[in-house]
Amino acid sequence: MSFYQRLNAAWDRSGSMLCVGLDPDVSRFPTSMRGSVDAIENFCKAIVDATGDLVCAFKPQIAYFAAVGAEKQLENICEYIRAKFPDVVLILDSKRGDIGDTASLYAREAFSRYGADAVTVNPYLGTDSLEPFLKTPGKGTIVLCRTSNAGSSEFQSLEIDGEPVYLRVARTAATKWRSTGECALVVGATYPDELAQVRAIVGDMPILVPGIGAQGGDINAVIRAGATRPSSSPASQATTKAGTTRPNSSAASRAANFAARRGLIINSSRAILYASDGANFATSARDVALATRDAIIAAG
Amino acid sequence: MSFYQRLNAAWDRSGSMLCVGLDPDVSRFPTSMRGSVDAIENFCKAIVDATGDLVCAFKPQIAYFAAVGAEKQLENICEYIRAKFPDVVLILDSKRGDIGDTASLYAREAFSRYGADAVTVNPYLGTDSLEPFLKTPGKGTIVLCRTSNAGSSEFQSLEIDGEPVYLRVARTAATKWRSTGECALVVGATYPDELAQVRAIVGDMPILVPGIGAQGGDINAVIRAGATRPSSSPASQATTKAGTTRPNSSAASRAANFAARRGLIINSSRAILYASDGANFATSARDVALATRDAIIAAG
Repeated sequence: MSFYQRLNAAWDRSGSMLCVGLDPDVSRFPTSMRGSVDAIENFCKAIVDATGDLVCAFKPQIAYFAAVGAEKQLENICEYIRAKFPDVVLILDSKRGDIGDTASLYAREAFSRYGADAVTVNPYLGTDSLEPFLKTPGKGTIVLCRTSNAGSSEFQSLEIDGEPVYLRVARTAATKWRSTGECALVVGATYPDELAQVRAIVGDMPILVPGIGAQGGDINAVIRAGATRPSSSPASQATTKAGTTRPNSSAASRAANFAARRGLIINSSRAILYASDGANFATSARDVALATRDAIIAAG
Repeated sequence: MSFYQRLNAAWDRSGSMLCVGLDPDVSRFPTSMRGSVDAIENFCKAIVDATGDLVCAFKPQIAYFAAVGAEKQLENICEYIRAKFPDVVLILDSKRGDIGDTASLYAREAFSRYGADAVTVNPYLGTDSLEPFLKTPGKGTIVLCRTSNAGSSEFQSLEIDGEPVYLRVARTAATKWRSTGECALVVGATYPDELAQVRAIVGDMPILVPGIGAQGGDINAVIRAGATRPSSSPASQATTKAGTTRPNSSAASRAANFAARRGLIINSSRAILYASDGANFATSARDVALATRDAIIAAG
């Protein structure tokens, strides 16, 4: 099964474009686990159990594991996700970028060691640095395009012949990289105008959107700017239009509304993971994930 | 002690601008160790022992460890380098690039977990993504500028108002980043013209130069384009000039020649590590490292 097929199946089965980011910060763990590096695995597994039916993807951020020497725990968490929620897409967020031979090793890290379906990578070194990822059959290569941080414009928005670098990245993704493998892009929720520009260039290519939740990105703006609308469902477009005025909570219209939208993997990490620091942290995480999923479905 | 002071002291004590890159590829190990992930630590320690007196720096490439789950071995190798060769600069080559909180964790990985003196990072996400590294006291932040791979021009050479992106990176390094912390740059030996352009912008900022050896970069061209000449040693400049016609092998003139040059950390990995696949691999590695060091000293 290709990465695109897996992702489409995950959207269909879950009815959700929400991705939960696994950023285990031991200093923000529930009181009973706080500060314990050994608790990372149990914390993440509890979040996975509590939210697995609400998401299209999980996205562990490897820095949280690498900083404290918890790679083995990350291996176990990835294995757990694949076993418990085999239809959920597993994205390793490692933003790797290196030359040929070294890039091949990073591809091996993501796809073999951690069994990820997709990995985030950095385009600065050029196409040859991305090829080991793009050429891995059945795997997704999610290239940084316009990142969610305040300083992302410094290089990403430099203009070449009137076109910013991030649109050059999007154009290269839509042509060269897509012809080589299963490419996707990262565009921050904090830049909805740029997201709309990227969407206009890349057609139905999947876009990973970090930056809602703790970073303050607006879900309505993200959906309007970045969601795709399959041409086969004109009826649901009407439903979507109705949904722009207020969230619609009935399951049927929610499903119809969702059926009209695809194309985004909308990530939230901290707002879900640290919804509560009490013994009920997993339940609280589920509540926030559910509300976020529904806000995404109702948005427009 | 600052990173710049440590690096200057390493150049002075070793009389060398050579850096040995630790890229342990188990498929190229000596026959007796070949294919053994467990042998990575012993292989690297043998290379360190054989070359430690010939180098200003060691540069482990973390992908080689991450691909096979050998982070603990990397920890041990880093500890070994610091204990056996405390004056040699330890550079973690990880090319990290991520936003604020995550970047802080990658800084912790490099500087605390592995005890590196410096780390390579990617500028695509902008200044705020580099600050956690730049603001770590006494540590070096080595930013990718113009990488050694064939495809590096694709984004790095895009022109903004007549200036390529890599020179914009160099200019930002020379001003903003240098005022925040101890910044250095990566420029590939395979692009000596670009190295000269970068050197003209960044003054005496250290530049890490990969791409000699297996990648084919020319040492003479690298030295001519990128080495700095301390203004305090006019006598050695005369020696250097004489040295341009042919390598000078006497120890005294070699020292004088070297005294005129600084500013570069010239990396070679595979040509040294895999000089032989026999039981004599460490001796062979030392022979190649010695020849490379002397070629750097004699070059110009």
